[in-house]
Amino acid sequence: MGSIRVLVEGDLRQAVGFGQEELAAIEAVYPLISEGVGSMPPIMRVDVPESNGEIDIKTAYLPGYSGIAVKVSAGFFDNPSKGLPSLGGLMMVFDAETGVPRSALFDNGYLTDLRTGLAGAVAARYLARADSTSAALLGAGAQARYQLEALTLVRSIERAKVWARQPHRAVEFATEMTERLGFAVEPASSIEDAVDGAQILVTTTPSTEPLVDTSMLHAGLHVTAVGSDAETKQEISPGVVSAADRFVCDSIAQSSRLGELRTALASGFDIGSVAELGQVIAGTVPGRTSDTEVTICDLTGTGAQDTAIASLAVERSARAGVGTAIET
Amino acid sequence: MGSIRVLVEGDLRQAVGFGQEELAAIEAVYPLISEGVGSMPPIMRVDVPESNGEIDIKTAYLPGYSGIAVKVSAGFFDNPSKGLPSLGGLMMVFDAETGVPRSALFDNGYLTDLRTGLAGAVAARYLARADSTSAALLGAGAQARYQLEALTLVRSIERAKVWARQPHRAVEFATEMTERLGFAVEPASSIEDAVDGAQILVTTTPSTEPLVDTSMLHAGLHVTAVGSDAETKQEISPGVVSAADRFVCDSIAQSSRLGELRTALASGFDIGSVAELGQVIAGTVPGRTSDTEVTICDLTGTGAQDTAIASLAVERSARAGVGTAIET
Repeated sequence: MGSIRVLVEGDLRQAVGFGQEELAAIEAVYPLISEGVGSMPPIMRVDVPESNGEIDIKTAYLPGYSGIAVKVSAGFFDNPSKGLPSLGGLMMVFDAETGVPRSALFDNGYLTDLRTGLAGAVAARYLARADSTSAALLGAGAQARYQLEALTLVRSIERAKVWARQPHRAVEFATEMTERLGFAVEPASSIEDAVDGAQILVTTTPSTEPLVDTSMLHAGLHVTAVGSDAETKQEISPGVVSAADRFVCDSIAQSSRLGELRTALASGFDIGSVAELGQVIAGTVPGRTSDTEVTICDLTGTGAQDTAIASLAVERSARAGVGTAIET
Repeated sequence: MGSIRVLVEGDLRQAVGFGQEELAAIEAVYPLISEGVGSMPPIMRVDVPESNGEIDIKTAYLPGYSGIAVKVSAGFFDNPSKGLPSLGGLMMVFDAETGVPRSALFDNGYLTDLRTGLAGAVAARYLARADSTSAALLGAGAQARYQLEALTLVRSIERAKVWARQPHRAVEFATEMTERLGFAVEPASSIEDAVDGAQILVTTTPSTEPLVDTSMLHAGLHVTAVGSDAETKQEISPGVVSAADRFVCDSIAQSSRLGELRTALASGFDIGSVAELGQVIAGTVPGRTSDTEVTICDLTGTGAQDTAIASLAVERSARAGVGTAIET
C-alpha cells in the first residue's frame, strides 16, 4: 500500500525544537481554533480503572497543514511500582489530503512537551509586559524547564525563580537551568517569594488545590496556567481569575471542563468576559493594554497544537531522510 | 523505552482468520458492552471537507483483554481520482496493564473486515433459525464475502444468492464464492429474488435509502444489517423494523445515531422494545423463540470488537515472532 515513516524521540529532537518556525507554527493554530476553522473534536477518553490508568486521544484537522495528528496519551499511575514511567503514548500522522498514514511518532512525550512550552511563549508574547525580564515558575519538572526556555524566545528574561513542593527539586532545576540558559535561576523559599518581583508566572504543577491566591498578585503580573488539564486539577483560585483584568484560554470549551475556568465558573465568574488566545492573536480582542494590568492565560492543550508540531516534524524528517521506512 | 511490533496485512492474515477462537473473542465482547463493563467512548470524528474526507476513531477498554486498540479509519472519497483507495487506516494497540504502546497494525482494513464478518456470524448464531441453509446477500463487495464465509461457521449453509446494484459484480461474487466455499452461490435478478427462500439476509451496502421493505419479509427470516454506520446511511425501511418480532443491535447508542434505528425512531418506533446483542448472548433477553419469527440485528461496529480482534492478533504474532520490532 505504501510506506510509513517511523520516528523515535532522537529523530524528533533532531527535527524540531525551540525555533522561530516552530513558534510560528504553534501561534498560527490559535486563531484557527477560535474561528472554528478546521475540525477539533472533544478529547476522547478511556478509563482503565483496574490499572489506575487512562488513555486520552486528541486530534485536529487544520486547513493548510500537511498532516492530521492523532495523539494517544496514556497515564497509568501504578507504573512506577513496575519500574515504568506513568506517562506515555505516541502520535500517528495522516496525510491531510488523502488520509493515508504517513508516520508513527514514538516521541516519549517530547512533542507534547515542546508544543506546550511554545504555547507558553505565545501566551507571554501577547499578554506579558513587553519589558518583562523576570520569570517565576511553580513546579520544577520537565514542563517547567520547557516553559522557561520557551519564554526566552519572546522576552529578554534575565532572571527566574522556581518553587517546588520538594525543595531539592527546585535546587536541581535552578542549577541545571542557570547553566543551560546563562542567567540566574534561583530556588524560591515559597510561592510568594517566587512571584514577588516577577512579571511572568508560569504554573506547571499537577495540583488539585489552588496554589496562587489573590494576595500573591501584583500590578503588571501575567500568569500562564499550564498544569490543569483534568476535572480534578486546579492551580489558581477562583478569586485570582475574577481579580485579573483579562482572562484568556486556549479553548473555552476545554478550560471550562478541565482547566482553571472550571472552578471559577462554579464560583460565579462570568464566562462572557472570557476570550480565547486565538482572538487576542487575531486582534479581535485586546491583549494586555497597560503595564499595570494583571492577565491570565489558561492552557489546557489542544489537538490542533499536536497537528501543527507533528506536521512540521514529519515534513522536516522526510526532507532530511530521518527515521525508518516501513513498507505497509 | 522499549520496542513496538509493527504488523502489516500479511502478518495479520497469518495471525487471525475465520477460526472458532476468533469467533469466541468477538462473541464475548457483546455482553461486556451491554453490561457497561469496561469503557467504550463514543466514536471520535474529524471532518476534512477540503478533501471530501473524514477520520473516525474507535477504541475500548475491556477487562480481561491484554490490549486496548485505538483504530483510526480514514475515508477520503476523492482518493480514487488520485489512484488511491477511499478507505484506509490502522490500529494501535496499547498494553491494558501499563498503557505502553505494543503494536502498530497496518492491516489495510483486514481486521475490521474480519471482526465485522465474525459479528455477522454471532448475530446469526443467536437469531437465525437453527436449521438455516440458505443465505441472501445485498452488496457484492469485500464485506459481503466476509459475511457469507462467516455464516458457515455457525450454520450449515448450502446455497446463497447475491444481489448487487451492478449485476456484473454479483456474477463475479457468485463465481468466486462458489469456488471458495464449495456450495452454489448465484446472482439474484432482484432483491426480492435474493431474499425469497432465504432464512438469513445480510445487507452490506452503503445505501442511503431503504433497500428492504416489508413486502420482502417472510416468516422465519433473520436480517443482519451491516451497511449503515453513518448518519446518512440506511438499508432497511422503518416499516421493516416495526414489523419484525425482535430487533436487536450491537449498541443502542450507535444504532440510534448511525444505524437502522435512526430512521425507525424518527418514524415512531418504540426504543423500549430494542435489545442489544449482548443481552441476547447473556440470556437476559430472548433471541429467536420460534421458527416463524422475523428477527433483525443491526450492526454498526464497535471499538470493543477492535480491541478483541487486535488483542488476539498481537498475542499470536508475538508468540510466533511475526512482524518487525522497532526500538523506541
